[in-house]
Amino acid sequence: MNLKDYLKTRQELINNALSRLLPPESELPESLHTAMRYSALDGGKRIRPILTLAAAETGGGKVEDALPAACAVELVHAFSLVHDDLPCMDNDDFRRGKPTSHKVFGEATALLAGDALLILAFEAIAQTPSSVPRKAVLDAVQLLASAAGSAGMTGGQALDVEAEGKQVTPAEVEQIHRRKTGALLEAAVVVGAIVGAADEAAGDALSEYGRGIGLAFQIVDDLLDLTGDQERLGKTVGSDLKRDKATYPSVMGVAESKRLAAEAANHAVEALASFGEAAEPLRLIARLILERDY
Amino acid sequence: MNLKDYLKTRQELINNALSRLLPPESELPESLHTAMRYSALDGGKRIRPILTLAAAETGGGKVEDALPAACAVELVHAFSLVHDDLPCMDNDDFRRGKPTSHKVFGEATALLAGDALLILAFEAIAQTPSSVPRKAVLDAVQLLASAAGSAGMTGGQALDVEAEGKQVTPAEVEQIHRRKTGALLEAAVVVGAIVGAADEAAGDALSEYGRGIGLAFQIVDDLLDLTGDQERLGKTVGSDLKRDKATYPSVMGVAESKRLAAEAANHAVEALASFGEAAEPLRLIARLILERDY
Repeated sequence: MNLKDYLKTRQELINNALSRLLPPESELPESLHTAMRYSALDGGKRIRPILTLAAAETGGGKVEDALPAACAVELVHAFSLVHDDLPCMDNDDFRRGKPTSHKVFGEATALLAGDALLILAFEAIAQTPSSVPRKAVLDAVQLLASAAGSAGMTGGQALDVEAEGKQVTPAEVEQIHRRKTGALLEAAVVVGAIVGAADEAAGDALSEYGRGIGLAFQIVDDLLDLTGDQERLGKTVGSDLKRDKATYPSVMGVAESKRLAAEAANHAVEALASFGEAAEPLRLIARLILERDY
Repeated sequence: MNLKDYLKTRQELINNALSRLLPPESELPESLHTAMRYSALDGGKRIRPILTLAAAETGGGKVEDALPAACAVELVHAFSLVHDDLPCMDNDDFRRGKPTSHKVFGEATALLAGDALLILAFEAIAQTPSSVPRKAVLDAVQLLASAAGSAGMTGGQALDVEAEGKQVTPAEVEQIHRRKTGALLEAAVVVGAIVGAADEAAGDALSEYGRGIGLAFQIVDDLLDLTGDQERLGKTVGSDLKRDKATYPSVMGVAESKRLAAEAANHAVEALASFGEAAEPLRLIARLILERDY
């Protein structure tokens, strides 16, 4: 299969679905809806919802049944970026090469747009077609909430805030990043498995895959922040280091970080052994995550 | 029935359920969990979750089946208060007589605590006992999200931000307040009706009741902000007026505002005509909302 074409087709599918889900800019309150669309339709790579769709298919489900859940995962991600960029958090001026939400719409509207994107995520997943058992959808709601909340992504952000300027151990770095980035990436895969009606063994294998790519993704993110090129990343390079944040390279060095990322991605691919051809997109995505330029 | 005893018993039931739902302060990240509990267990009157339980019972359902949904409604309310108080929004220093979350924990942690409370709301409602049909629970998730999101409460906040310092019409004031406060109060009742398995006619009557008390509640809130006593309210009196916000009394005067509030509460009580004794708590709560001191 051609991964590039596959990703492009899936990105379009997701962008169209998100565009239909998001309220139009012409509807009151215009500022809020404009800000929501600005952040949710900003040309991101859609790696998380693509994972949801691919996991659903790998488990035996249909793409269209998993589309609302995929959008929900992306909306949770979009919400987190808007709030992370706020002045009281990372105070970032650029995201994906564009001014951040609060720079364009002001802090109050950016705050509310983040809130509304998060809420829309749960509205979206609850709209999963009735061909998916209602119990499975509720399980997916619970899993997404758990991955996003204080035990997952939001908790990781809070640990990160607590760790700023402090000496942290490698175990603490892993804990922070597992929650901040890994939890939602893993949930993207598991939510797909659930709405795709994967059986227990398939679900376990997909979870294992999700954990592996989650870890690889975060380590690569840290490496990119250190060594990447600002234009390509569209955000301020070295910003984590400047704020004395706990990162993999700062705690265990560049070489060891690269080794760990490769190990995690390999582990993820190995977890897919039982699936054969059906899991080819997930295997290629694991390689892609590892081989982003750094 | 003795309303005071009834409310006290229900408040305790809800406070205990919330306390079990919220992660313990001793669990990492401690700052986040402490901030979540600080805002969600702060001695509020619990009027919204009490409405959810009462609506469920009025429709023929069980209190214990409606408890997770009731907690979800209260958590959405708690989230909105934390974010509304932030410096970029109302910049309030006190809430219910205590320093606001960002004053105690800092802005970053308050932001994240609000996010985590919102997410926990959806995790909670998804944990509704299996005695409630899964489809009904998903309907309740969707309704709660819709009431909380850009078409409801968060949208009302955004309209309010847009309206600051501008001349607004009475119709615009009603629109802002219907969304800001009315939408969640109405949803509290309707979510209760849904998980309580009310039939269509009962559901419609309860929705009508919810709309009426939602409107009455907001008008009374505006009147209290204008005339209430700071100590009793636990927040800065006249703060809406100072920021030139659109309120009922500022747009249509105190006397007309009082008349409108009474009309809305009466309308709410009339909607319950078909229920007989079972709806007595809802009737008394409508009176209570109207007769808060102002």
